[in-house]
Amino acid sequence: MMNEINKYVETHKQRFLDELFELIRIPSISSIPAHKPDMYRAAEKWKEILLAAGADKAEVMETDGNPVTYGEKIIDKKAPTVLVYGHMDVMPVDPVDLWKTDPFEPVVKDGKIWARGADDDKGQSFMHAKAFEYLAQSGKLGCNVKFLIEGEEEVGSPNLPKFCKKHKKMLQADVILVSDTSMIARDMPSITTGLRGLAYWQVEVTGPAADLHSGLFGGAVANPINVLSKMIAQTMDDEGRILIPGFYDDVAEVSGKERAMMGKAPFSIQEYKKSVGVKELFGEKGYTTNERTGIRPTFDVCGIWGGYTGEGAKTVLPSKAYAKISTRLVPNQDHKKIEKLFVKYFESIAPKSVKVKVEYLHGGPSYVCPIDLPAYKAAEKALKDVYGKDPVPVRSGGSIPIIATFEEILGVKSVLMGFGLGSDAIHSPNENFPLEQFYNGIRTLPLFYQYLAEERD
Amino acid sequence: MMNEINKYVETHKQRFLDELFELIRIPSISSIPAHKPDMYRAAEKWKEILLAAGADKAEVMETDGNPVTYGEKIIDKKAPTVLVYGHMDVMPVDPVDLWKTDPFEPVVKDGKIWARGADDDKGQSFMHAKAFEYLAQSGKLGCNVKFLIEGEEEVGSPNLPKFCKKHKKMLQADVILVSDTSMIARDMPSITTGLRGLAYWQVEVTGPAADLHSGLFGGAVANPINVLSKMIAQTMDDEGRILIPGFYDDVAEVSGKERAMMGKAPFSIQEYKKSVGVKELFGEKGYTTNERTGIRPTFDVCGIWGGYTGEGAKTVLPSKAYAKISTRLVPNQDHKKIEKLFVKYFESIAPKSVKVKVEYLHGGPSYVCPIDLPAYKAAEKALKDVYGKDPVPVRSGGSIPIIATFEEILGVKSVLMGFGLGSDAIHSPNENFPLEQFYNGIRTLPLFYQYLAEERD
Repeated sequence: MMNEINKYVETHKQRFLDELFELIRIPSISSIPAHKPDMYRAAEKWKEILLAAGADKAEVMETDGNPVTYGEKIIDKKAPTVLVYGHMDVMPVDPVDLWKTDPFEPVVKDGKIWARGADDDKGQSFMHAKAFEYLAQSGKLGCNVKFLIEGEEEVGSPNLPKFCKKHKKMLQADVILVSDTSMIARDMPSITTGLRGLAYWQVEVTGPAADLHSGLFGGAVANPINVLSKMIAQTMDDEGRILIPGFYDDVAEVSGKERAMMGKAPFSIQEYKKSVGVKELFGEKGYTTNERTGIRPTFDVCGIWGGYTGEGAKTVLPSKAYAKISTRLVPNQDHKKIEKLFVKYFESIAPKSVKVKVEYLHGGPSYVCPIDLPAYKAAEKALKDVYGKDPVPVRSGGSIPIIATFEEILGVKSVLMGFGLGSDAIHSPNENFPLEQFYNGIRTLPLFYQYLAEERD
Repeated sequence: MMNEINKYVETHKQRFLDELFELIRIPSISSIPAHKPDMYRAAEKWKEILLAAGADKAEVMETDGNPVTYGEKIIDKKAPTVLVYGHMDVMPVDPVDLWKTDPFEPVVKDGKIWARGADDDKGQSFMHAKAFEYLAQSGKLGCNVKFLIEGEEEVGSPNLPKFCKKHKKMLQADVILVSDTSMIARDMPSITTGLRGLAYWQVEVTGPAADLHSGLFGGAVANPINVLSKMIAQTMDDEGRILIPGFYDDVAEVSGKERAMMGKAPFSIQEYKKSVGVKELFGEKGYTTNERTGIRPTFDVCGIWGGYTGEGAKTVLPSKAYAKISTRLVPNQDHKKIEKLFVKYFESIAPKSVKVKVEYLHGGPSYVCPIDLPAYKAAEKALKDVYGKDPVPVRSGGSIPIIATFEEILGVKSVLMGFGLGSDAIHSPNENFPLEQFYNGIRTLPLFYQYLAEERD
């Protein structure tokens, strides 16, 4: 089968790119309400993609938020069913002045596609459409295939759980297949077996009712930026431990043996520091860098603002200060419990000289995939065929909150076979996706279906 | 003389407003380079105002920054000479959505002028032009008058010291008269006898070279917002004491007797809290509210920003975080020494996981005016004539850095006879200036000149 796929990819290379670029050009930023019409344009585009690829049917379906696109091709009720999950929405593009090219006008340069969504997740989702196209057109499809492409992944999929409950039967599958993660390196395939959970809040601290002159009032009225800074400082100690009471209570401690195994993964501190551009790393005392991102929770302020932020100097004692605050969670931590613990803690440390409002923006649980799952084995074999090496199972620091929810509602495990690379700058300026990974993804996925069908036979 | 002035003001009321409004409509924001042409427009407008009022000459003069307008009327070399100092530049108008009217389109409502600069300092400076007009037109001017209206007060007058050195002879005077402060209340006149100094910095904290995905890297790479928050928190303790080593070394301690006298000024904690809209005040332990703003230094973050600050949630570990940080200084503190102490402290507490850059934006020394100065006495009598009460000497928390510099370079003391009120919202949205104060200023100032000339006789 491999020779045939390679030939198919070679023949249709340019068309695949042209089609992907049409999808990328739609600025489907789910966190900005003004882009709502773009969410519908993206959903319609996905319907068109699935029908053109060979789906029996495809439709744009409403949720309580942005629409999803669902499509399917059922070949045989006895064959295994794969539900492909991906997302059509993308992150905002701020700070836009750091982009070297227009985020929504994809460019191929240095062997990579440069654009918002090139990897996360338009590029990766689109590989599935093209792998499916090959199988459907060549008559070699050995599984039933369902596609669920959603439009709110980047804001925590707030409306998808309800949609899943409502359409449980339609979404029934043996396994969910997802490409929304990365592999260790272009010559070192890996499969993500764990994801961190997430809880995300917005905090508003109000001091005086209006901005005040910092000379006339400074020293006598609490400054909300000073106060917010102190509250943030009070949430993590100098050794990287989070100080919210009860925060670590449910954290699944990883055994010494397992940590020793994780420690064998190839990793260079020097390379890592160089790649992120820092002289020294900082993280929780007593854990390695990979442990800090893989098995330990975090506390990061994702954004902060307040007072005068223009050019030059303005002497103001501001009325308000804001922060967007996130924690990454690990297995056994309940994001709904953490949500409340943080609110309680932040309210408890707020001095009476200010008003504090904490709003929960979104969150989701963590996830673990067992490596003896038949679909995991199929993914392993497919990746070995294309990359020539057995893929390594890894725990990722990122979150795809809906993955744990799928398990809870649909009772189906997910296999996270991502083709991104650490250098793809997802969520950042100059997001990119190597052409080699894009085409390798399209080459690998048909083999996954073949091996999965064989497992069943 | 009073009846005559009152009649003059009554006759020309509307014209005074119309002329002031032309000045206010020029958006002369000195901290924003794009407004440079407006600074020249404002300077030309002031030249026109002074010549129309009766100056012998007036001209727009260059400095190394924004231009100044100088004008004079010399009646007699033996008469006392008053140098009127004011400024034509204004503060930025952010956050502009909190303004109820266009900041640069003045409106009269509820007995007040509403606009940026209505008080600070276009409205207050303009009173001097109209008082001078009355004296010049009526032939009752008993002093030589010089006007120096500058365009960089709100950014700390960085180029005026050099200008003063160059034009020392031209600016020679017996006293400098300034209306750029406020009085206790509309029925309680006061004269400002002390001003706090100022030092103002911008801090940039850089973590990773680019924004990172907070899931993939969070926990392993220092977050510059977390770090900056901690550094700010480390600069003031829970009792409002500033922790920069050496910061308090030169602070002039005020005697218990003097503090007791200050404590007699009418003041209601409840009214104060209500006026700023807070439930509890916060300031340095061991000092009253008026002491905290009058005789003690402060540490206020005037602005902070970094990471994602748009709508919704973006999971990012940002590359950079910024803050605009100011301290108010009291007599004997040297702003140039404090500048260095802060930079040294902030660099010393920065962890090696980030890069910290501290830029000094501007600063100036504090100032004290003796209450036995002949010009102070003249101001006292003039205010009593119009307001019916002896004015109270007060220490203001604000800063006019150039006032101490005038003393240093020109050897001349300033009398700070301000007609603003605490409710004028200077530097804030909805700045305003009561018409009553505006007209009372024009009524009071000619009396000042009369009393000062009498002192000399």
